Amino acid sequence: MNDFSLSNAQYSIEMLGTIAFALSGVVESARRRLDAVGVYVVAFLAAFGGGTLRDILLDRRPFFWVEHSEQLWLVFGLVTAALLFMRSRHLEPTERAMQWPDALGMGLFAASGAQLALAFDSPPLVAALLGTVTAVFGGVLRDVVCNDIPKVFRDHQPYAVWAFVAGWMIVAMDALDVAQWLALVLAAGTATLLRVLSVLLDWRLPAWRVES
Amino acid sequence: MNDFSLSNAQYSIEMLGTIAFALSGVVESARRRLDAVGVYVVAFLAAFGGGTLRDILLDRRPFFWVEHSEQLWLVFGLVTAALLFMRSRHLEPTERAMQWPDALGMGLFAASGAQLALAFDSPPLVAALLGTVTAVFGGVLRDVVCNDIPKVFRDHQPYAVWAFVAGWMIVAMDALDVAQWLALVLAAGTATLLRVLSVLLDWRLPAWRVES
Amino acid sequence: MNDFSLSNAQYSIEMLGTIAFALSGVVESARRRLDAVGVYVVAFLAAFGGGTLRDILLDRRPFFWVEHSEQLWLVFGLVTAALLFMRSRHLEPTERAMQWPDALGMGLFAASGAQLALAFDSPPLVAALLGTVTAVFGGVLRDVVCNDIPKVFRDHQPYAVWAFVAGWMIVAMDALDVAQWLALVLAAGTATLLRVLSVLLDWRLPAWRVES
Repeated sequence: MNDFSLSNAQYSIEMLGTIAFALSGVVESARRRLDAVGVYVVAFLAAFGGGTLRDILLDRRPFFWVEHSEQLWLVFGLVTAALLFMRSRHLEPTERAMQWPDALGMGLFAASGAQLALAFDSPPLVAALLGTVTAVFGGVLRDVVCNDIPKVFRDHQPYAVWAFVAGWMIVAMDALDVAQWLALVLAAGTATLLRVLSVLLDWRLPAWRVES
Repeated sequence: MNDFSLSNAQYSIEMLGTIAFALSGVVESARRRLDAVGVYVVAFLAAFGGGTLRDILLDRRPFFWVEHSEQLWLVFGLVTAALLFMRSRHLEPTERAMQWPDALGMGLFAASGAQLALAFDSPPLVAALLGTVTAVFGGVLRDVVCNDIPKVFRDHQPYAVWAFVAGWMIVAMDALDVAQWLALVLAAGTATLLRVLSVLLDWRLPAWRVES
Repeated sequence: MNDFSLSNAQYSIEMLGTIAFALSGVVESARRRLDAVGVYVVAFLAAFGGGTLRDILLDRRPFFWVEHSEQLWLVFGLVTAALLFMRSRHLEPTERAMQWPDALGMGLFAASGAQLALAFDSPPLVAALLGTVTAVFGGVLRDVVCNDIPKVFRDHQPYAVWAFVAGWMIVAMDALDVAQWLALVLAAGTATLLRVLSVLLDWRLPAWRVES
């Protein structure tokens, strides 16, 4: 695989993940009865919040959405379409259908976030954490603004854990001099697969013993 | 109009807007029964949160409130006076009276935020969004910290929409080489006027069809 | 006292404060029935949120937890141990026992945060505020993510006030050319002592008159 086709494939998957994150914001804000402005803002936070926080923590400018402002337009158009055409009965099926591209986006953002952090000379644990932040904090901001405890903190179904695993895989493969594109594919693929299995087989995080 | 008198007028209006934003924080935190520390912090978040987030996103330092730390002192004194002299029966009238300077502040911060973003080479959509962030996110942070869904996301009365319009007017007039001061006056004035009309005539955002 | 032994002592106290902040996150997230991921994230936010926000506001990189990533590992191990060994009946005593190292951490982070802000040429009020932010915002983020109004804003028992006092003491002693280590010891010690007295004697902030 040459670099051009990877970066094309990567960009397409990123877009898919961004769309899934944005739609999660639309569904959540519709549930909370926000007005149209709220729907746009929550969708933008869900789609771009994680990567933006990563870029702020790395002190990286311009932001990815300033370099690729077509992504802003895409989400803008998507939310507009949702506002025009979505009905209550679409919320549940949309959320279910979005689980799969969301898993893809989670894996890819975790892996590429960790690679970016390594390129900024972060130590291993920091790189793994920044990959996780990239994958997870859009959803956290979405839920905080909607006045919920973030789903990823109370769901008991593994999600952030796999992002963290992908981050460590990137760190390990970087230390072993694995080619960047291969590391990206392996780490993102593993995290996505584990997330899909978590949903299909309803895996649970070990229970916090305080509760018993 | 020469530059000096504009910047003087602009600064006075900014102060008025900042005072209105700070008082919205005082009223909200009084409603939520916060202690004195909470009242100061929420007032500061409401007054300076939007501009601070804009400066972080633009990677602009020093912050406007470091360059103009007299604004911090002004809000500090204002909150102290409110703590000493404000009673429950003042909350409602204060909130109503603050709607007009708030509309002025919203228009001016949206327009000047978008101009600043353009000066930092932001693409058009990013500049319009950063203008909106400047005008709106102080109130968002105020409400998030007080454990409310932000008013601007669920109010159905147009507010952020006019900030966004002001941002696009700045972008358009910048492309047409309109003088900066004239663009600022026109965009801020239009957004303020539209907001005042929204309140007076109780305009509503088109309903999100999911609700029906 | 020479610089070496001070910086060693300072580092040990900082670690103690960080541990207290992290455990406050564990206790809060256990109360809110978060899953294991939530417990880690809330503990990290409580422990590192205040200093991170200070560094973002000062545009200071690398973050202190990138330079000292052993602190991340420490909190990681601490939370893991808590997840394995903590039971419901430990929550209350843990919280009570943590009040004293928390007071130490608050005083020290406020004083060192203000010194750092002065080293970045902040004006006096800004330096005092940034010291307060360093000491207080970890707890604010912890509570916001757990969907509570931050305890520090509604507790009526002085906490942030003493951090602010420590910040001003640093500013004053800097203007008087007091040696940095002495200023640090005096300001941090004063704030810690006042906080301990506030807890022991149950001091109250003067009531916000709106409530009566």
